[in-house]
Amino acid sequence: MLIDQHCHSVLAPGAEEPDDETLGTLLTESDRPPAAGTDPFGGALGLAVRRWCPPALGLPAHADPAAYLARRRELGTAEATRRLLSAAGLTACLVDTGLTTAAGRPLLPLADLARASGARVYEVVRLETVAAEVVAEPARWPEALAQALADACADAVAVKSVLAYRYGLAIPAARPTRAEVVRAAGEWLGGPRERLADPVLLRHLLWQAVELGLPIQLHTGFGDPDLRLHLADPALLVDFVRAVEPSGVPLVLLHCYPYHRQAAWLAHCFPQVYVDVGLTLSYTGARAAEVLGEVLELAPFGKVMFSTDAYGLPELYLVGAAQYRYALDRLLAGWRQDGACTAADAAAIGAGLSGANASRLYRLDLATPADGQVT
Amino acid sequence: MLIDQHCHSVLAPGAEEPDDETLGTLLTESDRPPAAGTDPFGGALGLAVRRWCPPALGLPAHADPAAYLARRRELGTAEATRRLLSAAGLTACLVDTGLTTAAGRPLLPLADLARASGARVYEVVRLETVAAEVVAEPARWPEALAQALADACADAVAVKSVLAYRYGLAIPAARPTRAEVVRAAGEWLGGPRERLADPVLLRHLLWQAVELGLPIQLHTGFGDPDLRLHLADPALLVDFVRAVEPSGVPLVLLHCYPYHRQAAWLAHCFPQVYVDVGLTLSYTGARAAEVLGEVLELAPFGKVMFSTDAYGLPELYLVGAAQYRYALDRLLAGWRQDGACTAADAAAIGAGLSGANASRLYRLDLATPADGQVT
Amino acid sequence: MLIDQHCHSVLAPGAEEPDDETLGTLLTESDRPPAAGTDPFGGALGLAVRRWCPPALGLPAHADPAAYLARRRELGTAEATRRLLSAAGLTACLVDTGLTTAAGRPLLPLADLARASGARVYEVVRLETVAAEVVAEPARWPEALAQALADACADAVAVKSVLAYRYGLAIPAARPTRAEVVRAAGEWLGGPRERLADPVLLRHLLWQAVELGLPIQLHTGFGDPDLRLHLADPALLVDFVRAVEPSGVPLVLLHCYPYHRQAAWLAHCFPQVYVDVGLTLSYTGARAAEVLGEVLELAPFGKVMFSTDAYGLPELYLVGAAQYRYALDRLLAGWRQDGACTAADAAAIGAGLSGANASRLYRLDLATPADGQVT
Repeated sequence: MLIDQHCHSVLAPGAEEPDDETLGTLLTESDRPPAAGTDPFGGALGLAVRRWCPPALGLPAHADPAAYLARRRELGTAEATRRLLSAAGLTACLVDTGLTTAAGRPLLPLADLARASGARVYEVVRLETVAAEVVAEPARWPEALAQALADACADAVAVKSVLAYRYGLAIPAARPTRAEVVRAAGEWLGGPRERLADPVLLRHLLWQAVELGLPIQLHTGFGDPDLRLHLADPALLVDFVRAVEPSGVPLVLLHCYPYHRQAAWLAHCFPQVYVDVGLTLSYTGARAAEVLGEVLELAPFGKVMFSTDAYGLPELYLVGAAQYRYALDRLLAGWRQDGACTAADAAAIGAGLSGANASRLYRLDLATPADGQVT
Repeated sequence: MLIDQHCHSVLAPGAEEPDDETLGTLLTESDRPPAAGTDPFGGALGLAVRRWCPPALGLPAHADPAAYLARRRELGTAEATRRLLSAAGLTACLVDTGLTTAAGRPLLPLADLARASGARVYEVVRLETVAAEVVAEPARWPEALAQALADACADAVAVKSVLAYRYGLAIPAARPTRAEVVRAAGEWLGGPRERLADPVLLRHLLWQAVELGLPIQLHTGFGDPDLRLHLADPALLVDFVRAVEPSGVPLVLLHCYPYHRQAAWLAHCFPQVYVDVGLTLSYTGARAAEVLGEVLELAPFGKVMFSTDAYGLPELYLVGAAQYRYALDRLLAGWRQDGACTAADAAAIGAGLSGANASRLYRLDLATPADGQVT
Repeated sequence: MLIDQHCHSVLAPGAEEPDDETLGTLLTESDRPPAAGTDPFGGALGLAVRRWCPPALGLPAHADPAAYLARRRELGTAEATRRLLSAAGLTACLVDTGLTTAAGRPLLPLADLARASGARVYEVVRLETVAAEVVAEPARWPEALAQALADACADAVAVKSVLAYRYGLAIPAARPTRAEVVRAAGEWLGGPRERLADPVLLRHLLWQAVELGLPIQLHTGFGDPDLRLHLADPALLVDFVRAVEPSGVPLVLLHCYPYHRQAAWLAHCFPQVYVDVGLTLSYTGARAAEVLGEVLELAPFGKVMFSTDAYGLPELYLVGAAQYRYALDRLLAGWRQDGACTAADAAAIGAGLSGANASRLYRLDLATPADGQVT
């Protein structure tokens, strides 16, 4: 069992195949063109793609980028996607549906993603995306938002917050008052509505999510250049974590790197905090086992969860899954060899991270066979 | 020689044996009940307990938690404590006496701890605990505090500050004025006296300690959920470190993780700063050698000291000592094998960390045989 | 090819040989006397010096400090310097000329450094050093500064900023206005002129450098006790990085440790950001391969550059080069063995870090044989 507890959809096949530049852009967290003398494959993630993906397309591991991209074009997006996704061997995916395009191209609808991957697909609703579409008189905006969220989450297993991108994680813990929310909503609704970045509204969204009761996934740690990394340190959430604790609503810290040890401390201390290793294990390449080890220094084994955070490219699903398996096997083999745990301990730890923890947290029903269905 | 330069006492045997839940609580830094699907043994520290402790109670290493706890109960607290403490093989312990209970149960008096462990026991006085008991007119509080500290420290080898918990480490460097202290004392004495968290008084306590001249141990880095981790980064102490430097009073940064590289830089730069690896090497389990390696990247070898930070459970003494030995051996064996140092270098480094550094810093007289006495 | 993209000159031979204390002082980032019981060789860098340097002076590796220092004195500074520098095997050095003495003794002029090392030597101009010498009416100071910088940089390949020491990296992104600069210049020129630490002037210097168009090297991360480490976290530069981005002027983050993962993220996201591993790989000793691995988790391979940051002691050139080669070989051998990359990949990564990246960035002409000339 392998449950990808946080990911995004991948490019839909279109009339025109994506060119190499588009594919390259999706291989980094940067949305800028590469610097002179560098290319998107020239980093830890690029090596990992060349390690794990060519075999799924019938090429030897470590094929060079040009050969790989040529083979991918030859197969076409639909076939390459099917091969890469199924090679990832995912049982279930929790898909953040807040992004519907990548590099300006549409993403696969969830039903198609489910079919192509053979995995059961669950939805994660992005709070800011829902809120941005709520239009109402400011005085009625809170109720309109609450309704919109309830509607959007009818079939969702979790919500997702990108507070880290929009404002940073150093927010006051307290729920904003209704008057504050109405005032902030008025300003936002009356403004250019570029994107929702008002800290009062962002904080209100989190508290609305607490009310909904679904687990809240929060972006923390590294990401694209839109971020101020030091303000995405999950340790900054501690007051909010304490304030939410009585509700029992789970907070899932995504990515976390390079503050994953801080995230692990929060998971160690607070029963409702969980940590995710997605994005991080893909991007850190050959170093993934060490980074996973750093997470497991303090994080309870029952609160760490695999994900890929794949987005746009099916390669990122396969790389995410392969890197995770590789890192986990290497780490735990070292522990066993070193006398730090038994084979049974290692198996239990792996089963938790791979899916049992996510299945329990999100209350996933995996009993019936999953054959590419959206739940 | 193995000197535990910072620890606490352990549960006293009582009419009633502690139940499994109580023991479990003491196995994590969290004071909350474990999350659903998790248990106190399900983490790096739990694995380490199962690795090192069962043999001391006559069970095979990696015994499962239920078997271990049953055997512990069978032996009774007094016998289990004696076995676990003596298996730790400590020459001396510096015990922070600021905590007298754990999980609501009393801790062993120092003389009993000395007897059970066979180690020489020294006292470390917790500043905030002394200050909280000083009652005087605000205008005379500074003198009353100075007297109380002098009295409390008559036989102590060091003092301890929990500023990190009460306020955080980002304090102004300057000694507060007498007027500021009197005013703050007045407010505190007139208030509900819940716990001393006023930053002026906390800072004053540190400066009083500088005047006493004993080494000052400071909690830094991770700990229980009462902490804001990012405010416990020892780098935040830099202005205070500089201000204290002329006095020559040693500052010992405890735990430090995950900011141990920052702590090591302070020890590298400032003659009077020392770092401790207690708590950290216990909790990081199979990863302890790597974490110790990170400390030794910048910290002078003559300024790093072993401790356990054990509290409540004698298991934490044995695990702390065993994890330290294991991490040190593994790290230095790697260095030797790699050609980075000679066997004699490795032995000297180990001797320093294990006790020579602490013995020199705290001026411990270890010449006469220690047979469970309090010094 | 090995290009040291950031270093300083070394002690010039003088009438009197430097004593052991002087040499010891230059072996740490601390300018304080060592603490009781410690010595300058008693740390990771000290072990690395004893590993790599004695053979260059005809002693076995790991010679003890006394024997090494005696042999060094026997050979004399000129000969020891020549041997150590040539053993480093450097093709080219980019020398920050902002420091002209070390431990109160003069440094070798660049031409002599070039002769002794056999490397091509390029100049890096320290912004604050130039600015500190500009005297003009406040109203004309901006122009005088611009002229002085242009003159100083006529033959330079880069400029260097020590903003991290003087103020910290958390600066506003925007270029200060002329009025702000004139006012700040007036205050500084009218004051005791101790050292330039005004944040407006420091920021103005950076923007002047952007106008010059040369790559800007910035001290980030650890250094001497004059620093507040947490304010040298390169992540704090993100707003400035974004503001500079349209100019295309490269920003080279020096040292970075222990925030090298943060620096790598900036290099990952922003095309004009580069990272350097100098100082860091020397000081972290036997752990250098792990630290280099941490840099390469996120940093594009085409944007990471070797340097030594050697200063004062020729030992630091040899140690820097040897530690880098050792760390790189060990890291990449592990990757190959592990199946993470091919031998050709490893060779290409190494070639980039060792010199190709720096050569491209600084547009160095290395075609003609370098025989100790200053370019």
